[in-house]
Amino acid sequence: MSKSYSRLDKDQVAVLLVDHQAGLMSLVRDIDPDKFKNNVLALADIAKYFKLPTILTTSFEDGPNGPLMPELKEMFPGAPYIARPGQINAWDNEDFVKAIKATGKKQLLIAGVVTEVCVAFPALSALAEDFEVFVVTDASGTFNEVTRLAAWDRMTAAGAQLMSWFGVAAELHRDWRNDVVGLGTLFANHIPDYRNLINSYNAASAAK
Amino acid sequence: MSKSYSRLDKDQVAVLLVDHQAGLMSLVRDIDPDKFKNNVLALADIAKYFKLPTILTTSFEDGPNGPLMPELKEMFPGAPYIARPGQINAWDNEDFVKAIKATGKKQLLIAGVVTEVCVAFPALSALAEDFEVFVVTDASGTFNEVTRLAAWDRMTAAGAQLMSWFGVAAELHRDWRNDVVGLGTLFANHIPDYRNLINSYNAASAAK
Amino acid sequence: MSKSYSRLDKDQVAVLLVDHQAGLMSLVRDIDPDKFKNNVLALADIAKYFKLPTILTTSFEDGPNGPLMPELKEMFPGAPYIARPGQINAWDNEDFVKAIKATGKKQLLIAGVVTEVCVAFPALSALAEDFEVFVVTDASGTFNEVTRLAAWDRMTAAGAQLMSWFGVAAELHRDWRNDVVGLGTLFANHIPDYRNLINSYNAASAAK
Amino acid sequence: MSKSYSRLDKDQVAVLLVDHQAGLMSLVRDIDPDKFKNNVLALADIAKYFKLPTILTTSFEDGPNGPLMPELKEMFPGAPYIARPGQINAWDNEDFVKAIKATGKKQLLIAGVVTEVCVAFPALSALAEDFEVFVVTDASGTFNEVTRLAAWDRMTAAGAQLMSWFGVAAELHRDWRNDVVGLGTLFANHIPDYRNLINSYNAASAAK
Amino acid sequence: MSKSYSRLDKDQVAVLLVDHQAGLMSLVRDIDPDKFKNNVLALADIAKYFKLPTILTTSFEDGPNGPLMPELKEMFPGAPYIARPGQINAWDNEDFVKAIKATGKKQLLIAGVVTEVCVAFPALSALAEDFEVFVVTDASGTFNEVTRLAAWDRMTAAGAQLMSWFGVAAELHRDWRNDVVGLGTLFANHIPDYRNLINSYNAASAAK
Amino acid sequence: MSKSYSRLDKDQVAVLLVDHQAGLMSLVRDIDPDKFKNNVLALADIAKYFKLPTILTTSFEDGPNGPLMPELKEMFPGAPYIARPGQINAWDNEDFVKAIKATGKKQLLIAGVVTEVCVAFPALSALAEDFEVFVVTDASGTFNEVTRLAAWDRMTAAGAQLMSWFGVAAELHRDWRNDVVGLGTLFANHIPDYRNLINSYNAASAAK
Amino acid sequence: MSKSYSRLDKDQVAVLLVDHQAGLMSLVRDIDPDKFKNNVLALADIAKYFKLPTILTTSFEDGPNGPLMPELKEMFPGAPYIARPGQINAWDNEDFVKAIKATGKKQLLIAGVVTEVCVAFPALSALAEDFEVFVVTDASGTFNEVTRLAAWDRMTAAGAQLMSWFGVAAELHRDWRNDVVGLGTLFANHIPDYRNLINSYNAASAAK
Amino acid sequence: MSKSYSRLDKDQVAVLLVDHQAGLMSLVRDIDPDKFKNNVLALADIAKYFKLPTILTTSFEDGPNGPLMPELKEMFPGAPYIARPGQINAWDNEDFVKAIKATGKKQLLIAGVVTEVCVAFPALSALAEDFEVFVVTDASGTFNEVTRLAAWDRMTAAGAQLMSWFGVAAELHRDWRNDVVGLGTLFANHIPDYRNLINSYNAASAAK
Repeated sequence: MSKSYSRLDKDQVAVLLVDHQAGLMSLVRDIDPDKFKNNVLALADIAKYFKLPTILTTSFEDGPNGPLMPELKEMFPGAPYIARPGQINAWDNEDFVKAIKATGKKQLLIAGVVTEVCVAFPALSALAEDFEVFVVTDASGTFNEVTRLAAWDRMTAAGAQLMSWFGVAAELHRDWRNDVVGLGTLFANHIPDYRNLINSYNAASAAK
Repeated sequence: MSKSYSRLDKDQVAVLLVDHQAGLMSLVRDIDPDKFKNNVLALADIAKYFKLPTILTTSFEDGPNGPLMPELKEMFPGAPYIARPGQINAWDNEDFVKAIKATGKKQLLIAGVVTEVCVAFPALSALAEDFEVFVVTDASGTFNEVTRLAAWDRMTAAGAQLMSWFGVAAELHRDWRNDVVGLGTLFANHIPDYRNLINSYNAASAAK
Repeated sequence: MSKSYSRLDKDQVAVLLVDHQAGLMSLVRDIDPDKFKNNVLALADIAKYFKLPTILTTSFEDGPNGPLMPELKEMFPGAPYIARPGQINAWDNEDFVKAIKATGKKQLLIAGVVTEVCVAFPALSALAEDFEVFVVTDASGTFNEVTRLAAWDRMTAAGAQLMSWFGVAAELHRDWRNDVVGLGTLFANHIPDYRNLINSYNAASAAK
Repeated sequence: MSKSYSRLDKDQVAVLLVDHQAGLMSLVRDIDPDKFKNNVLALADIAKYFKLPTILTTSFEDGPNGPLMPELKEMFPGAPYIARPGQINAWDNEDFVKAIKATGKKQLLIAGVVTEVCVAFPALSALAEDFEVFVVTDASGTFNEVTRLAAWDRMTAAGAQLMSWFGVAAELHRDWRNDVVGLGTLFANHIPDYRNLINSYNAASAAK
Repeated sequence: MSKSYSRLDKDQVAVLLVDHQAGLMSLVRDIDPDKFKNNVLALADIAKYFKLPTILTTSFEDGPNGPLMPELKEMFPGAPYIARPGQINAWDNEDFVKAIKATGKKQLLIAGVVTEVCVAFPALSALAEDFEVFVVTDASGTFNEVTRLAAWDRMTAAGAQLMSWFGVAAELHRDWRNDVVGLGTLFANHIPDYRNLINSYNAASAAK
Repeated sequence: MSKSYSRLDKDQVAVLLVDHQAGLMSLVRDIDPDKFKNNVLALADIAKYFKLPTILTTSFEDGPNGPLMPELKEMFPGAPYIARPGQINAWDNEDFVKAIKATGKKQLLIAGVVTEVCVAFPALSALAEDFEVFVVTDASGTFNEVTRLAAWDRMTAAGAQLMSWFGVAAELHRDWRNDVVGLGTLFANHIPDYRNLINSYNAASAAK
Repeated sequence: MSKSYSRLDKDQVAVLLVDHQAGLMSLVRDIDPDKFKNNVLALADIAKYFKLPTILTTSFEDGPNGPLMPELKEMFPGAPYIARPGQINAWDNEDFVKAIKATGKKQLLIAGVVTEVCVAFPALSALAEDFEVFVVTDASGTFNEVTRLAAWDRMTAAGAQLMSWFGVAAELHRDWRNDVVGLGTLFANHIPDYRNLINSYNAASAAK
Repeated sequence: MSKSYSRLDKDQVAVLLVDHQAGLMSLVRDIDPDKFKNNVLALADIAKYFKLPTILTTSFEDGPNGPLMPELKEMFPGAPYIARPGQINAWDNEDFVKAIKATGKKQLLIAGVVTEVCVAFPALSALAEDFEVFVVTDASGTFNEVTRLAAWDRMTAAGAQLMSWFGVAAELHRDWRNDVVGLGTLFANHIPDYRNLINSYNAASAAK
């Protein structure tokens, strides 16, 4: 009974960044803030690097939920940007779904705040419409570990695949020979340990 | 192979609060007591806010298990209240099941103490009778993390969905435009970080 | 799509205690030793209380693995006791399987040391022969949490149900009216918080 | 070599609540938000209950630091309220120190956000002027445990005493006979486990 | 600058067990309940074994604080038992201090619930009257780790020494030759790992 | 509905060690470095002990990823060693797959660094080609626990079985009588607690 | 017995950054790498912002310890840079001490890798020569928490004060009115939660 | 008020290894067994490397406490080896103290099992006789963290200095130029991360 490997394909992927807003991010307590900020920006860098169609959406950004992370706005100036007037599940917003369908992609990378709502609801909706859904777990945050694990269970039971930004980058790139410097730089910018490796390697090589 | 999204619908939901009794709550050690009390009251507020039919039940409340949390009694004065004479699985009590069926709802939100017994047993019984079961994980408590995770595994294998009170509220509300102030107040009362956001927002707006 | 509730029935259950030996127990580091000893004895008390046929087995007890916990020997003097000459999976020992089949029971409660071997191997073997398998997670121990979770995953994928000793007792008893004092005493002996409840209740009642 | 016991005396104590502002409180990550909010309000209740002179101060409350917790404003309407124009160490603000000295008290209970700055700086300044300083550790919060422990070390080396709000209440009250109901209510309002005890006790007593 | 070693001497020690009551013990959350119960009983066994004068005291045992652990009553039937009418600091009760002074001992082993009140207050009072104070940390419990560490800091700054029940037993016994079987049995009864060692040792020796 | 037990069979198993390179190993933070090194070497010892065909592969070992662990090179001098020129998923490298197929084995034990990439990608690929895949969880490492659990979920959903090196050894060996000394030595070399057992046992036996 | 408050004074402080080298930083496991990198750069920004004389030193940077963090080199191009030929304690290097003394400062902020060696040794040496020493705990890293706490104990016993970079900045700045924008920017760049506050505040103000 | 720096001097140091016996080591649960074994052997290597006089002692090694770690016996064949007939505090054994005094050293490095007894008791005794005492914290183990921290407090209050084996090696060596290869090898053998650094460095250097 073989299992087909549902593999990310950079020509089939769209990225959904849901509600990474200043106020909501202050609610995230299942990942350390330094690391969480870094993870979100790493995922954004991946979207840019692989030129993946990316869709931004926010909820009530004029109220306490606060404005979108400024870097995301700057990095995706031309991306569809759906400031939802009220729908909690982004998939309930027609413009959002239209924007996704306009990309023609069937694999969706979803990350957002908070995991059990802003990520899980559109993920479950997308699965119900036959999209392949990949949750970027470490670029999504919520109140605590209990909530995160419960949300994971609900999504995986419905068929979502759980990944991390590093796995996403690796699965999309497939072969280092496609571009060593580019991907290496992306990793070095977001993994201090990896940057240390590169710095040490360069120094050791130069020292000879 | 699409997965239908089994989504909470406020017209289809009944809430079962099982054995949140003073004595039993002192056994809960997988969630901090301040947070646990807050989570249970948040779920109760949700039931009130969405006018969900709610059923209370207790086990041996005249003995060491102790009386029901007084707030629950006060918040649901007209709710069916089944003081079980001995049945450990509330579903083994005919009055309890009758009260549930009388609501005519097919989606059940269940929370209780302790998770692997007072929640898991009726959850498994309800699934066997074709109800949709949603466990409110953070309004349910037990002895330790090992016990909680084992209980989760057993329930999800049988088809239960794991949620948290915040996800429940969000999935029931669907659209902030239905009532911004009401839901915002509920969140502010139970999420200190969210109340801080609102206070800061109001102050900043007023300051201009 | 209803799920039948595979429920412990005290007339259908046999208990397998696998390799709770002095040496092997010193390897257990995923549960605190005070708590682990208590959990194993609680499960043994359950087996006695419900008069469940119980089977003891050990591996190399004359070597470094050490002798069986003395309490288990004392509590089950007439139980089948299979000192395996070498088989790691107890199910590979004919006498062990024969003893199980002699009980005529189809529901097996399994606990042992270490979880991923002494519990998982016979659990997987029993599932393959159509037994219902219930793992008593907290009366089973192993090296660390990574190992425990991996073992759980393997067993649940094969259809085992994860429980804790407290859930087992509650599911077997079904109704407190069957014997309040007996079960209450068992709980008080193994749950310090529960004993405190009873002591406080008795004192408060007496004080009036 | 006897050590004199520097004991809180309710006639000698003033309370300093430093910078419990909405924005700053969202920075606190060494204590869970539910618990932290509860601890701060418990300390405020203590100040009210024992009629301790209480001084409120904030830093830049018109900016991102946000407004003072509304409950503190409401509970202490007549208290000195020093909105500092810029001084980080509250002790550098003449009005603050004047307000303290006006109380005539020599024992200072200090709590605030964040521990290593808003608590530690005035604590060290007060010690240098011969006040006795008691830090209410659990009503003070900061970024993480490393920061908290470093701040504690610096303050205790200078002679500050570390307490918790529960210890403060107990040391001030001295004898339950002074008022059982009052202090019991305060504890029940802020310690869920204690409220459970009381509810169970009352129920058990009534049941007789 | 040599430091004299202030060493427990079994002829100089009295034991104070403060408020190990059923209700208060349910508040203890900085030590697991299985382990805590075991630690308290281990200390009691030490007091019996070394025939140390032992003093029991409770606070409001007729109310929600609940009755003393029944084992302590049974183990020390003739011990001074001071049911304090209201004093929070046991040292404020004349009978308690009189009972201590009547022993003629200058080294006090103190354990109790909760650490920052029932242990710390009499410890600080005793130090002020030139007693040597040894806190049995693991037979004392409180709400959380922050509270425990703060209480420790306050007591050690005043000169108290922190020990554990195992260290106490070892320092009192001095030489195994005084009684190997007795002390070994005490250890085996309270340290599952140690009992395992002994069982394995005996089995291995017998096997030869 | 019986489940067949997919059991490791030493005549059916090949071992894949993927990217245990000096640089990459410094990225591993979900397992302590002392323990991780030990686990990898234990798995290598198992491969040697059971004479399992073993395949080594590395990624960019001339760059910052660094050289393969020297012990692995030394222990498997004749093993296929595929230094991949760029493929991230080792299964994308034809030589690697050819080497696996050349062994004629259908059960694959996979371990590597990092779990969600170097282990998960070839695991998913192998499952898609009808191999049975067993992940050696504790000989695989990654950035943190969130990443590890997400990777586990993805692999188990596709049918991989999670094991630990100890479980692997036990399932392969089947019966201690096949060789007590050999397996016992392997365990003693990699489990300090087990070595202590053996040393104590030998000493106790000799002492008689 | 008043304690003088030894307060950081920006005219009296020099900063010593010891061995923040790529290789050594990969050994740091008591602080998460994302956070540690951020903390070190925050301290460097503080040194720049307050124009504190800063001294860089490295140990064997041409070998496995690796090169200094490139940002530190870039930020302090004119700073004394002592590449120590072998001395482990930087204070044993005459050039290092000379550089410190040349600043004429008596308050030293020290951070480095690893805490118990590269920080503790020069800290103890400096204290012995009557410098005031302030350890920046969160910009220093080591192998694990046991090692960190032991190193802290040794340094505080000798008179060192433990701080965090945030406390250092606050104590040096003294009054926000000295420069709101500058310090606010520094905080926003290194504290994601604080940046969220500012972004939300600005948005809320603008929205009016 | 300068503090003299009490610095380890390889000509002034003796090493005391107390009760690292197979049975007792199985009681150690505050450090992971892989790491603990490694730390003890690292300290032993240091003693050999710096040719420090080393004294071995055991307690009841013919009973359940078990034999000394075999490596220690092998590494120090000529060292004084005091198998104490019963004294718990090794300092109470005349031969042990005589052996120490015979070395003529005034700085003692002490490590052992368990920390609060086998380390603390001789440490306090040695301090009382004017030795300088350095506790090697990570080569000493005990039951849990509460016990360890209490033992640390007692020892530091009496003047002991807390170190780790890495700090000890660094303070003794003083200057890498004394022997780069020797110390580097010692570190590589006991710090997997450090060995990775060296392997990567060598590979990178060779690659040029």
